[in-house]
Amino acid sequence: MNPTPVSLPYSATASLFASVRRQSETLCSPLTPEDMMVQSCPEASPAKWHLAHTAWFFETFVLREFLHGYRPLNEDYLWLFNSYYNAISAQPEKKLRACFSRPSLAEVLRYRSHVDSAILELLEMGAPEEAERRIVLGLNHEQQHQELLLTDIKHSFWMNPLKPVYKLEGPAITGRGAPVREFLVYESGVYATGHSGEGFAFDNELPRHRVWLDSFAIASQPVTCAEYLEFMQDGGYEQPELWLAEGWTAVQEEKWRAPLYWFQEDGEWQLFTLRGTFSVSDLGNSPVCHLSGYEAEAFARWAGKRLPTEAEWETAAATQPTHGNLLESGALHPVANAGTFFGNTWEWTASAYLGYPGYRALPGALGEYNGKFMSNQTVLRGGSCVTPASHIRPTYRNFFPSRTRWQFSGLRLCLTQE
Amino acid sequence: MNPTPVSLPYSATASLFASVRRQSETLCSPLTPEDMMVQSCPEASPAKWHLAHTAWFFETFVLREFLHGYRPLNEDYLWLFNSYYNAISAQPEKKLRACFSRPSLAEVLRYRSHVDSAILELLEMGAPEEAERRIVLGLNHEQQHQELLLTDIKHSFWMNPLKPVYKLEGPAITGRGAPVREFLVYESGVYATGHSGEGFAFDNELPRHRVWLDSFAIASQPVTCAEYLEFMQDGGYEQPELWLAEGWTAVQEEKWRAPLYWFQEDGEWQLFTLRGTFSVSDLGNSPVCHLSGYEAEAFARWAGKRLPTEAEWETAAATQPTHGNLLESGALHPVANAGTFFGNTWEWTASAYLGYPGYRALPGALGEYNGKFMSNQTVLRGGSCVTPASHIRPTYRNFFPSRTRWQFSGLRLCLTQE
Amino acid sequence: MNPTPVSLPYSATASLFASVRRQSETLCSPLTPEDMMVQSCPEASPAKWHLAHTAWFFETFVLREFLHGYRPLNEDYLWLFNSYYNAISAQPEKKLRACFSRPSLAEVLRYRSHVDSAILELLEMGAPEEAERRIVLGLNHEQQHQELLLTDIKHSFWMNPLKPVYKLEGPAITGRGAPVREFLVYESGVYATGHSGEGFAFDNELPRHRVWLDSFAIASQPVTCAEYLEFMQDGGYEQPELWLAEGWTAVQEEKWRAPLYWFQEDGEWQLFTLRGTFSVSDLGNSPVCHLSGYEAEAFARWAGKRLPTEAEWETAAATQPTHGNLLESGALHPVANAGTFFGNTWEWTASAYLGYPGYRALPGALGEYNGKFMSNQTVLRGGSCVTPASHIRPTYRNFFPSRTRWQFSGLRLCLTQE
Amino acid sequence: MNPTPVSLPYSATASLFASVRRQSETLCSPLTPEDMMVQSCPEASPAKWHLAHTAWFFETFVLREFLHGYRPLNEDYLWLFNSYYNAISAQPEKKLRACFSRPSLAEVLRYRSHVDSAILELLEMGAPEEAERRIVLGLNHEQQHQELLLTDIKHSFWMNPLKPVYKLEGPAITGRGAPVREFLVYESGVYATGHSGEGFAFDNELPRHRVWLDSFAIASQPVTCAEYLEFMQDGGYEQPELWLAEGWTAVQEEKWRAPLYWFQEDGEWQLFTLRGTFSVSDLGNSPVCHLSGYEAEAFARWAGKRLPTEAEWETAAATQPTHGNLLESGALHPVANAGTFFGNTWEWTASAYLGYPGYRALPGALGEYNGKFMSNQTVLRGGSCVTPASHIRPTYRNFFPSRTRWQFSGLRLCLTQE
Repeated sequence: MNPTPVSLPYSATASLFASVRRQSETLCSPLTPEDMMVQSCPEASPAKWHLAHTAWFFETFVLREFLHGYRPLNEDYLWLFNSYYNAISAQPEKKLRACFSRPSLAEVLRYRSHVDSAILELLEMGAPEEAERRIVLGLNHEQQHQELLLTDIKHSFWMNPLKPVYKLEGPAITGRGAPVREFLVYESGVYATGHSGEGFAFDNELPRHRVWLDSFAIASQPVTCAEYLEFMQDGGYEQPELWLAEGWTAVQEEKWRAPLYWFQEDGEWQLFTLRGTFSVSDLGNSPVCHLSGYEAEAFARWAGKRLPTEAEWETAAATQPTHGNLLESGALHPVANAGTFFGNTWEWTASAYLGYPGYRALPGALGEYNGKFMSNQTVLRGGSCVTPASHIRPTYRNFFPSRTRWQFSGLRLCLTQE
Repeated sequence: MNPTPVSLPYSATASLFASVRRQSETLCSPLTPEDMMVQSCPEASPAKWHLAHTAWFFETFVLREFLHGYRPLNEDYLWLFNSYYNAISAQPEKKLRACFSRPSLAEVLRYRSHVDSAILELLEMGAPEEAERRIVLGLNHEQQHQELLLTDIKHSFWMNPLKPVYKLEGPAITGRGAPVREFLVYESGVYATGHSGEGFAFDNELPRHRVWLDSFAIASQPVTCAEYLEFMQDGGYEQPELWLAEGWTAVQEEKWRAPLYWFQEDGEWQLFTLRGTFSVSDLGNSPVCHLSGYEAEAFARWAGKRLPTEAEWETAAATQPTHGNLLESGALHPVANAGTFFGNTWEWTASAYLGYPGYRALPGALGEYNGKFMSNQTVLRGGSCVTPASHIRPTYRNFFPSRTRWQFSGLRLCLTQE
Repeated sequence: MNPTPVSLPYSATASLFASVRRQSETLCSPLTPEDMMVQSCPEASPAKWHLAHTAWFFETFVLREFLHGYRPLNEDYLWLFNSYYNAISAQPEKKLRACFSRPSLAEVLRYRSHVDSAILELLEMGAPEEAERRIVLGLNHEQQHQELLLTDIKHSFWMNPLKPVYKLEGPAITGRGAPVREFLVYESGVYATGHSGEGFAFDNELPRHRVWLDSFAIASQPVTCAEYLEFMQDGGYEQPELWLAEGWTAVQEEKWRAPLYWFQEDGEWQLFTLRGTFSVSDLGNSPVCHLSGYEAEAFARWAGKRLPTEAEWETAAATQPTHGNLLESGALHPVANAGTFFGNTWEWTASAYLGYPGYRALPGALGEYNGKFMSNQTVLRGGSCVTPASHIRPTYRNFFPSRTRWQFSGLRLCLTQE
Repeated sequence: MNPTPVSLPYSATASLFASVRRQSETLCSPLTPEDMMVQSCPEASPAKWHLAHTAWFFETFVLREFLHGYRPLNEDYLWLFNSYYNAISAQPEKKLRACFSRPSLAEVLRYRSHVDSAILELLEMGAPEEAERRIVLGLNHEQQHQELLLTDIKHSFWMNPLKPVYKLEGPAITGRGAPVREFLVYESGVYATGHSGEGFAFDNELPRHRVWLDSFAIASQPVTCAEYLEFMQDGGYEQPELWLAEGWTAVQEEKWRAPLYWFQEDGEWQLFTLRGTFSVSDLGNSPVCHLSGYEAEAFARWAGKRLPTEAEWETAAATQPTHGNLLESGALHPVANAGTFFGNTWEWTASAYLGYPGYRALPGALGEYNGKFMSNQTVLRGGSCVTPASHIRPTYRNFFPSRTRWQFSGLRLCLTQE
């Protein structure tokens, strides 16, 4: 029931390792060392911290345990770059990460390189199976942080009154046609969800298990900006009956009137993206994103439908190609008509993030990776436009509190068939 | 899918009405008007407010709609005693309830009597079916508030440095033998949960629906004080690895070291109850209560087991007698060896409080009763020693945030069979 | 430098004692025991607590020390009704006072009577000089609480959506003519301020000491509601340049747009008082009250003047009769044309509350009475319409944080002569 | 009553301008661009922001008004680098300053250089008197920010678990002999305080005015670390009777047990400085610093003395040489036996920060410089080891809330002569 052992030949693991690690640094290439210091909301971390923490992960869980004679670059990093693993060491408070001007970016890059050499050395020597399993876990961990890094940088640029652009060039994100949406129908019955087979999966995707599903229909395409605008114009944010009680409280407290990153200028809605600012009217067919789970839920109620459960979502997605607008497209923003269930935006489900029947956390400190967060969070599925393509799969479970909006998070409609 | 129509003959509904309404006032007989003003924590309301709000419920949802020519006692009460129904009116902030010295208790009792007469008049005239359905809903609503009233009074007396006793007399709560606990085993398969049939149920217990359950074993008796003390003495509150991340945060922030209402005197643990203060050593075999969901979860992990899901709990409970130490016993505290699944303490489950497949809230303002709270709450099952006996059933779903401790809340262990 | 010894003959002290003590209970006569439980803002305490705490003061500082063989009614009261004297005992948190349904009002009255008898017994036996000095201190303490009791009840009735009236009958408070205001001019020079002579004074009014004052002119009458309304209509609450930075923050955070207890109904300003609700237009000539120090300061700046320092205020007030609209008038609200410097409203000054040169707190626990609050508070002078007449004098220093509005607090204008 | 006009010849103003401006940049030379992004407490700003804001001050108050045809480098900077001048523009929330990765440090330096050229051009052309007056104000403003920059960097390095050192080299700060302290005695009488004459002063130092002082004695040297350690060892932080009520609350809430920047290692007190970490035992004779006003006040009470008022302090200081351990010494930490009243640490006084009699704020937006902060702050006097020597004078009034500890703030004892 643990993550399945990895069976890549040496050269494959090593070259995967090198390419994922390189990717993190490439994503930072439009950033200055100063950009990489910013932490603009409690959810976010500085980009430099992401680079350091992902190295820490390999050092802590692989090198210190499996590479005989490994010499850490700096003993302080063991706890300085620990995120939340109590079994490893105490940790600096999260909000302090923006204070770590030292070590400098240059030093952090040296730390990465120090770790990289040691990992490659270990692989070359023939790493034990458990070490290799953890290296693959570390690469998946790194991909999660690649996504977070972009999410966080987007927020930090948004909080900067000068509204910098992360990257101008890339495929066009406007001018796409309307998606053709149909409802895929599934009959009642016992289905199986959760990961099985050879490939990598996190412990929270396991074990594969049976579920009963009542007959349902699920949209083949997510909700668009134009549709969400209708909800807004129909007074969606003013009608308490559309909202969960906590959602309505959030609307009042946070003064939500539109998704995050939307703002009005001369009466017209604008949208801030990693690629610059666009008029919403030019992005009407694009999937709406940066919604809280409450907004997703309220929209669905307004539309006379509901959010899918994660089992419904997975059942439908498993029959679809795992393609879409993912990180590698370079769009860095949802675009219309790009795949069906994967990429573009994470999709809020109706399911609380809990352990599957028979769930077991990884043993030891790595058990803190996923399991301890199984309260008051909601499952999201499908990956987004900043998720690496090799990182997503039908069984993948992302999770955030329903109040979260800084993620690329949207929704897809579903309904019970009667 | 609505609550099933009620088919009691007139006299039956009227006499049920009279007896439930009388019960609320009887519960207040040990209290002074001053006691009935106290609101000692954000979860609680003053006892006087409970009396008024339960009258308001009948006035608002029955009399104003169904009794032709009904004259309210005071038009201001329409919103003064509204708890959270946005579709009815604005409401005073919850924390203001402790400011309502006016209307006086005497006036509130007059209000209750005014409403009682009108309801009985309506029943006598032959109430329309929907009116009668709502009267039954109102009685179930009132029973919920009877339970809350006692929970709240317990807390208010606890916050009073003089530690008043609610009621001295009653059946002995100490000196009971150890419970005989066995594990009931269920095979994998499709089960059905949720309410069906004739009797009353809340909308959130509907519809009855199928679920797949993997084989599991569930304890026939809940966890006791003596067992919980072992967890404490084994350092349960000091080991982060036993806790969900949010639970560990709560332990730190709230400085939890024992269940609510436990305190140490001369090195020995004491327990404050509605019946006075006892030594924990005299209550060792009693079910432990006033735990948060996090403590319940940490205990289960420490014990090498887990909490049951609500479907597992209901599947097992449905085969057991709906008896136990409930309000009518007069014990007002859990006692050892009193039934199996019902009474004594609400039991935290592993399930988030969400709508069942096909769930529909009641139409109109009454739809706000249950549905809008379906986020960040956890299901509890089974009723407690302050739950009226006629109020509990196997399908009953109670729900609170996992951090809540002021309820009579404990746990029962479960495990997956493999 | 201690409060001057008291030289009343026995009968005088005893009869003063009896009459002040009776006054507290008389003020409660319009209140129910439920009213006396309410604590509607952090500044306030329940009326019942005021009754108990003032008895506690005599018990703690007089009876326990000076009455041989005194038997307390209840040993728990020593700390239960302690407000803030760390040298005596720990204290319940202030916000818990609303939880003290027990002891009941009847029991608190019995406590008062128990203390009264003992004090009168001590006086009859011939109390030592220090005991008698403390009895007089206790009576002044009780008068302060009489004023607070009314202030707190006013707020509690305001927070009650039914807006009860404390007392209907009493002298008319509307329909008074406009006050004749002149500016009294004082030349530069060395003046003396602070208490001297035989009568009672708090330690913070001592010692009498010299101050240099530059020439100033001070208004003979305070600012009226009509004048304050002009400030409001001129956009006073919208112009940051009129406000201290902290005042402007308070305006934003608290959404202040008018004094406390003003509200708009059908476009007209209404004013809630202890005597019922009136139209501001009928109270235009009355002194404005329930202002924060920030509002007082902003008004003065808008008017091209400033607040007086406490030395300026006292210098002018010392030449005026100590008459005015005080508690005994029964008006319970400021009225136009009632005296010059005393009664109606406390007046914010430009002075921080600090010790006078040579200030010494009383020895022992009583030193905590005044001295420890000498930070971040502002001096107010002159007494209000709920101050007992025998309690006010030119040297009296009241003090509250500038953000406080629940007091009967207004202002008088001043300017520097050049 | 405005700041006195400046009468430096052109070359003098220009060379002063160049040297003060250069000083700011020199202070940043040990810092990386990443260091200059950190904002580690609500009082602090990033070093880069200090550099930009001080340029903004000249641009806003001098160039935009007085240099015909001046072209701002970037129109957005007008509000981006506004600190708190409401009359100029809205401002970004203070806590956002850590998000301003753009403009980059390089760009900010270009901004400074752009402003510098323009100011020098204006001076060369012959600036109007008011422009020159504002340039001098701007230089004093810049010196204040130089001091803040070092204070803020110290805090940011302290929050960094790696505890970087700002500057290793410099004069020795340990190993100094004990200071010889005597008490200087002043007779009762009318004194004059406040600025007069030709040199620069802030508006809050004006006008010079008379005050009456009762006879007092004031120490010629401040309190040392060794003396403060005695207070700590005598239980100073455990005795509520030594503290103002708000101070005692702060001790509890903040868990203060020693001055800021003190920490224990192996049972010995260590002290973090801009020059590295030292044992307190090696700095025993140095003035203690990084005290809140409450700690200063409690120490004085423990010592049987009191803090001086600002008038007492100024009266004594005016007779002493304005020398001491100031920024130019390079010590960057208080040292024993360096002058009498100036340098080393700011000294908390017993005076609230209020306007002097006849105080007038500067006209227009510059009136927001000082006047609007005259509430709930306490005056400190004398300058510190990071105050530029040309910036301090006997009449200089610094001010912070009493709870502030991040400043180089200590105390000097005083007592009333009787």
